Amino acid sequence: MEILKSTVKKIEAPDPGLLEKAQAKLDDLTKPQGSLGRLEELAKQMVSITGNISPVINKKAVLVMAGDHGVVKDGVSAYPQEVTMQMVLNFLGGGAAINVLAKHIGAEVQVVDMGIAADTGSHPGLIDKKIAGGTENMTEGPAMSETQAISALEAGIEVSGMMIGNGYNIIATGDMGIGNTTPSSAITSVICNIGPEDVTGLGTGVDSDGLARKIEAIKKAISVNKPDPGNGIDMLSKVGGFEIGGIAGVILGCAANRIPVVIDGFISSAGALIAHAIEPKSAYYMIPSHCSVEKGHRVALAHLGLKPLFDFDMRLGEGTGAAIGISITEAAVKILNEMATFSSAGVSTKT
Amino acid sequence: MEILKSTVKKIEAPDPGLLEKAQAKLDDLTKPQGSLGRLEELAKQMVSITGNISPVINKKAVLVMAGDHGVVKDGVSAYPQEVTMQMVLNFLGGGAAINVLAKHIGAEVQVVDMGIAADTGSHPGLIDKKIAGGTENMTEGPAMSETQAISALEAGIEVSGMMIGNGYNIIATGDMGIGNTTPSSAITSVICNIGPEDVTGLGTGVDSDGLARKIEAIKKAISVNKPDPGNGIDMLSKVGGFEIGGIAGVILGCAANRIPVVIDGFISSAGALIAHAIEPKSAYYMIPSHCSVEKGHRVALAHLGLKPLFDFDMRLGEGTGAAIGISITEAAVKILNEMATFSSAGVSTKT
Repeated sequence: MEILKSTVKKIEAPDPGLLEKAQAKLDDLTKPQGSLGRLEELAKQMVSITGNISPVINKKAVLVMAGDHGVVKDGVSAYPQEVTMQMVLNFLGGGAAINVLAKHIGAEVQVVDMGIAADTGSHPGLIDKKIAGGTENMTEGPAMSETQAISALEAGIEVSGMMIGNGYNIIATGDMGIGNTTPSSAITSVICNIGPEDVTGLGTGVDSDGLARKIEAIKKAISVNKPDPGNGIDMLSKVGGFEIGGIAGVILGCAANRIPVVIDGFISSAGALIAHAIEPKSAYYMIPSHCSVEKGHRVALAHLGLKPLFDFDMRLGEGTGAAIGISITEAAVKILNEMATFSSAGVSTKT
Repeated sequence: MEILKSTVKKIEAPDPGLLEKAQAKLDDLTKPQGSLGRLEELAKQMVSITGNISPVINKKAVLVMAGDHGVVKDGVSAYPQEVTMQMVLNFLGGGAAINVLAKHIGAEVQVVDMGIAADTGSHPGLIDKKIAGGTENMTEGPAMSETQAISALEAGIEVSGMMIGNGYNIIATGDMGIGNTTPSSAITSVICNIGPEDVTGLGTGVDSDGLARKIEAIKKAISVNKPDPGNGIDMLSKVGGFEIGGIAGVILGCAANRIPVVIDGFISSAGALIAHAIEPKSAYYMIPSHCSVEKGHRVALAHLGLKPLFDFDMRLGEGTGAAIGISITEAAVKILNEMATFSSAGVSTKT
């Protein structure tokens, strides 16, 4: 609990004066003022996050947090649980979508075992933060104990701290966990106060019966556990997941260290909701990426005050949307740092 | 006229069977089918365009076509005409937004003088295809002669042919030309059959008086010249611009050579409308990028059947949105080419 407490205590709202300084710098560059739209907004957010008028992005990472879910026993996923471990091996082998996209944007992929329901053995490249071999079935009681929830959050904080210590200055969140859209929908439903039907989608591709089972499981989990929407730890323990807690911890750790954290899809946004419930100021450090097909994603992003950068109809997770978000953020920072000014380039200003 | 004719004759609709082959390849990769959404659509379009189930992108270029406009005499722009040449020098010096974004995505910037109203002298790196020192004022008669329109199209074809000959296998369109949202709105209005008020925006940032002058100029130009929406050459000569003709030529040249051409903002979409009016099949080879703030842009993209990838509230031109579009297209191609399959990675398929 000490790690979590001290981390949360470090999270501060950025100085609003930084936005003005960034705006002045942008307005002197050789383009009509504001003409780069959201790239300029992103550049300003990066100044605000880092406290640096010339923010630096040179080491990029995608943290893929993996965990399993007891609720899969209720038939909420289109894929069998062993796929979580199989996909983790695929990440470690470099063959998954996140590997391809991270390589494309020049980022490292770091996979973390937060609670896979399999013997992961010893794999170079896989960080072992396993809390347990999958959560309990949240339709029958809490997904995890409060102690486990705190451990999951602190594991995320530790992993982000290690990455930041190694010089990474932008981190994207990613997830792997068969069944994890179900707890994500439960978290979104309770925290955003919207019925499960309106925040539950097809996940990796269940049919209409599967969707009905998901909604039923979420309703039951909420009814059995009565999670407190104002208490992030309670939410996480009752209807969360180990990788969701890990993601929340990564976000809190980045926020405490003034490192931008790019939020991926629906599962990452559920982690962000937990982080936000624990410390609302963490949202200043969240950079949005895409809006996914999962209907709860838009709800969660709106609650966090995050406007997605793009909507590619994606629904894969792993950090795939956030990887593209890193590249766009980097483009925005380069605009701020590398463009000529009107005076240096000898370009006439507006008449 | 021979170059244009032979180029247009070479443009063919891609084999629809290619899309099925691409889909089958995508469906065997380690992700739920369709879960990468528009990235998968882009990958399929790339297969369709190139005729290659494993398309290659290794040399990328942004072609910035520059030209001036006689209609600026009517006070349609917030910036003085000399900014066209000043910005071209900025492009050549590497200080403009397009230089920064092209470098970010690993593309070359090639600037083409299609008709700048200034003595450009001799600049290494600037391709001289100057048709004339700016167009005539389209509110008083045709912006250019039919011969000049054909020359502009053929110049674009030649430049794209040169780039393709040098191994570039994806090309983004870009523009520079003070006043060029005015002819672009005129083209969009006539070809899409929508009133000038509904396709005319603030350009680089005119005030409401400036906007009224733009709309008035467009109405007058259309009334004086009566351009034929079914005739791309007539459209270009009467209410177009040299850089718009150059962009249309680049698109036709890419289409004839089965090279993907990424369409930037409103001016590029006006060029695309001209190319489409000349040969509708050219649209198969157009890859959309962003939707800009200019209200006519969405109209033009819809006419072309192009769904924008993202909307960043941009309104700069130069190829800035298309540069980001190249990077996203490249990501899509890498997904298709570099991901593991279910069998190779030992991952279970859907239950």
